Amino acid sequence: MSKVAVIGAGSWGTALAMVLCDNHHDVRIWTHNTEQKQRMEQEGKNQKYLPDIPLPSSLTIHDDLALAVEEVEAIVLVVPTKAIRETCQRLDQVLRHQVVMIHASKGIEPDSHYRISEMINEELDSTHYQEVAVLSGPSHAEEVSLKHPTTVTAASEDESLASFTQDLFMNQYFRVYTSTDVIGVELGGALKNIIALGAGISDGLGYGDNAKAALITRGLAEITRLASVKGANPLTFIGLTGVGDLIVTCTSSHSRNWRAGNLLGQGLSLDEVLSKMGMVVEGIRTTEAVTQLGQEEKIEMPITTGIYDVIHQNKSPKKVVDELMARDRTTEIDDISDILFNRDKD
Amino acid sequence: MSKVAVIGAGSWGTALAMVLCDNHHDVRIWTHNTEQKQRMEQEGKNQKYLPDIPLPSSLTIHDDLALAVEEVEAIVLVVPTKAIRETCQRLDQVLRHQVVMIHASKGIEPDSHYRISEMINEELDSTHYQEVAVLSGPSHAEEVSLKHPTTVTAASEDESLASFTQDLFMNQYFRVYTSTDVIGVELGGALKNIIALGAGISDGLGYGDNAKAALITRGLAEITRLASVKGANPLTFIGLTGVGDLIVTCTSSHSRNWRAGNLLGQGLSLDEVLSKMGMVVEGIRTTEAVTQLGQEEKIEMPITTGIYDVIHQNKSPKKVVDELMARDRTTEIDDISDILFNRDKD
Repeated sequence: MSKVAVIGAGSWGTALAMVLCDNHHDVRIWTHNTEQKQRMEQEGKNQKYLPDIPLPSSLTIHDDLALAVEEVEAIVLVVPTKAIRETCQRLDQVLRHQVVMIHASKGIEPDSHYRISEMINEELDSTHYQEVAVLSGPSHAEEVSLKHPTTVTAASEDESLASFTQDLFMNQYFRVYTSTDVIGVELGGALKNIIALGAGISDGLGYGDNAKAALITRGLAEITRLASVKGANPLTFIGLTGVGDLIVTCTSSHSRNWRAGNLLGQGLSLDEVLSKMGMVVEGIRTTEAVTQLGQEEKIEMPITTGIYDVIHQNKSPKKVVDELMARDRTTEIDDISDILFNRDKD
Repeated sequence: MSKVAVIGAGSWGTALAMVLCDNHHDVRIWTHNTEQKQRMEQEGKNQKYLPDIPLPSSLTIHDDLALAVEEVEAIVLVVPTKAIRETCQRLDQVLRHQVVMIHASKGIEPDSHYRISEMINEELDSTHYQEVAVLSGPSHAEEVSLKHPTTVTAASEDESLASFTQDLFMNQYFRVYTSTDVIGVELGGALKNIIALGAGISDGLGYGDNAKAALITRGLAEITRLASVKGANPLTFIGLTGVGDLIVTCTSSHSRNWRAGNLLGQGLSLDEVLSKMGMVVEGIRTTEAVTQLGQEEKIEMPITTGIYDVIHQNKSPKKVVDELMARDRTTEIDDISDILFNRDKD
């Protein structure tokens, strides 16, 4: 049994805390929002993020970060990308010992193009932890909270940390694989949100499953190409955090990135979409970061660029999808070999 | 403009004939069923397979095979797997010239474990054609008939034949990539039906998107492993005829394999499912063939074997899915590398 603090009480943080409670760990969850803390304690559930799911009675809820992480063995960081740096700075101030640092957030920082673990490494003093592990995979929080069968990957450059994370979370309905490819697992989790926006746009236009499957497949090739250049193992993209997460994010109406894309495809503007959603849509910020990154690395990313044009250049979604379909006729395998074996594109 | 005969007037044959008509080819479609021919002519549509979609006025309909293939440049064979041999034997009797031979069927023959092109090669006299091309990819016939954007792969060991097939079919809504990996494209199209049955079973059990994504991802690994041993290029499975077709078949209620699996997951027996469907469910025959093949080749295929047990051993679907989730904890990447680089499994 370990003492674990989950930092962030959105739907995913709450669902992961519930898995840890099921595994008989001593679990506390932290939210920056005092009102949310009080409501969770009073109502015995996290009504905004996981409606009607009772919280385990063993779960304690904190709004005081110092109290939340006191004497814990492991911290599971699950806050939006844009809150990672500030949360780490606050952790840095309150931590009095060394912890195991695990994160389960998905995104890339605009401008710096840092992955989550890179931001953690920059903000958190090295006396407080040794390595970062990332937990990622095809996993809607709602389904995990209902104990539906789910598989994820725990990745760390330190294999023993990946195994520790696996042991911490693994149970009968929550199956954890290990990996050492932190770059691939983090980029897979972040980049797939762009393709989910694209899949939503295609559905919003009224196109069918054929168009969406094409978009997902070509999108997988595109994000694998970029990730390989950034040091990921391309094989990671055939696994749970690549294909798996892509499928779940692109084909489910649970996915907020897909929902945002769907509204864009129906002709709403970015502002209208964001005000309708009322939740963080990581894919929109990721599309910006990755468009910049593709230009810097001189990598052709037609799907990402097309989505960027819909979001920021008011380009018609239909025009973008139709242009993607009208590109030159090519041989498929060469294209895929280029990606997997990292050959230069002509 | 080419003279083309489409052999088989199911939903896919009819949709492909419509694409060819749109491309201004001189197209005829053949059905073995005289009543169907007459209804199609009278009603101007193929009501049983593509309800309410008007057929192009330029499309001629035949029930006489000799007449259908007279002087055609290309034949597109689109009949169920179990009718391939007999149809080729009949073609052999009526063909008086050499044609370009393209097929768009998906399946594997039980017992022999032959792919479609291998059956064609065995039945059709070599004076009648040079090589076979296969057309496959994520493509519901209904959507193609509505001209929704669709992408497929044309594969032939003869590159010029793959390009000819690409030119024949390609247009603004129907995008064709070429490949020389006939084995990979044919096996992808056939084996994905097994995983679609599994995805349907998971959905029928009431499990969620997480479980289905896990099943699809691990299923992709499993069918890629078998196909590699049989000589396919594993990279083909990351493309349209692998991941792409898998997604479309596993996540759409259009898919009859998914529908059959869904009924099995709800607890119906194989006989009850087959009588409810009233259409060929290729995945059921393919599961038998591939279970035999896996045993012969000594390849571990837990998902295929589990589905076989549901279909033929009356094993509880819930028990099968739960057992798949409870397998030993492993490292994901090693598992995938084994497949792609064809290393022996321990």
